[in-house]
Amino acid sequence: MRKIKLKIEYDGTNYHGWQIQKNVITVQETIEKAISKLLGNQVGIIGCSRTDVGVHAYGQIAHFVTDSKIPGDKFSYAINNLLPSDIVIKQSEEVSEDFHSRYSAKGKRYRYLVYNDAHASAIMKNRSYHVRPKLDIEKMKRAAKYFIGEHDFAAFQSTGGQVLSTVREIFSLEIEKKEDNIISIEVTGNGFLYNMVRIIAGTLVYVGMGRIDADEIPLIIDSLDRTRAGKTAPAEGLYLMEIFY
Amino acid sequence: MRKIKLKIEYDGTNYHGWQIQKNVITVQETIEKAISKLLGNQVGIIGCSRTDVGVHAYGQIAHFVTDSKIPGDKFSYAINNLLPSDIVIKQSEEVSEDFHSRYSAKGKRYRYLVYNDAHASAIMKNRSYHVRPKLDIEKMKRAAKYFIGEHDFAAFQSTGGQVLSTVREIFSLEIEKKEDNIISIEVTGNGFLYNMVRIIAGTLVYVGMGRIDADEIPLIIDSLDRTRAGKTAPAEGLYLMEIFY
Repeated sequence: MRKIKLKIEYDGTNYHGWQIQKNVITVQETIEKAISKLLGNQVGIIGCSRTDVGVHAYGQIAHFVTDSKIPGDKFSYAINNLLPSDIVIKQSEEVSEDFHSRYSAKGKRYRYLVYNDAHASAIMKNRSYHVRPKLDIEKMKRAAKYFIGEHDFAAFQSTGGQVLSTVREIFSLEIEKKEDNIISIEVTGNGFLYNMVRIIAGTLVYVGMGRIDADEIPLIIDSLDRTRAGKTAPAEGLYLMEIFY
Repeated sequence: MRKIKLKIEYDGTNYHGWQIQKNVITVQETIEKAISKLLGNQVGIIGCSRTDVGVHAYGQIAHFVTDSKIPGDKFSYAINNLLPSDIVIKQSEEVSEDFHSRYSAKGKRYRYLVYNDAHASAIMKNRSYHVRPKLDIEKMKRAAKYFIGEHDFAAFQSTGGQVLSTVREIFSLEIEKKEDNIISIEVTGNGFLYNMVRIIAGTLVYVGMGRIDADEIPLIIDSLDRTRAGKTAPAEGLYLMEIFY
């Protein structure tokens, strides 16, 4: 059997997240159906990241096994012909037997987009978090520095996560004001707890609003107390950018 | 009577362009209905730019007259409550009687987004023009310079335009490679012929592909011959960014 790795982009707006569930349409299911149709037999795929309802991805990674003779790099074209246009296989390749999309992952990069204006955006709706009050970017940048490094991020985890340890390392956390009222929060780390990026984004938005002081971040991290951090920012602003192996 | 100026953002995907037509839904009609509902009487609005089916806007400008007592800057909030989320009034203000959204305009800025990758984008679909062959940005930048200045742009006009003169001045034309495989073409000028920006974009894409030589642009402009320029790039990549008064 051969193992095929897929890099996947999707607009999460019309899907009930990545993982297969009863009675709702998910990204995983949609891709499995396309591959099964292509190969003529039932194929299951294993994705790295179980993105939530409404979350987008530029670089989700999944793998599947097959005895098909299609060259590894040609799967992307063949599968894309059978997918709706809001899911695209950006790259496919044959990988060694010991590769696993989830267990081999060494880190991830996420982007969170805030749309900061008195009025919502018609073009960035479903693709960003609309925040009305003018955010203080400098305060957000100061706060961002405190997240970098290895910490116990228990205060930045929603209930529902099933992990033994809540210690994670954040390699970088960059805040950038882009054109058209967009603030981008880009975070790279060795792993993320359930909703961790969205809670960090929500906390940074509170810092930008002046509801949390930038220098309070270390205390919030040390508290291990979810109620001390900001609210979980909505799914539509979150993009899974890249997974490192 | 008071005159109110509106700045409008819209995602053009689900509209049959700006201008009211029979049997299809347009942006103008949708806004007129919202304002008419707000004010309790039939209101007509006059927009600056008759954007085509699928074209987007960050900065369309329109005006209407009313004897309503609503403060000028509050119309945006009141109208937005009655609009679908893919059309947003970003700003409203009372203007003097002699203001006219179309006739007072001194220039416009457009953006054209090309998505340049072997596979389409799930996230930028309907918001960019997907071009598969790798484009040579440096050639496109060299070609862009030739458009700047006052020229007769007859070669860059689709049939259907109703203008006396085809002379226009382009103030700037910037090509920039952005992240995530996006190439942005940003053009500012004192006015644009019918489909002019889309034909310039299509021509620059041909230059990037090597189908037209960069240094051929002056000859194409001088020819006044539409068949010499590149094809009209599709509507979904075009954004009306700003109108100057």
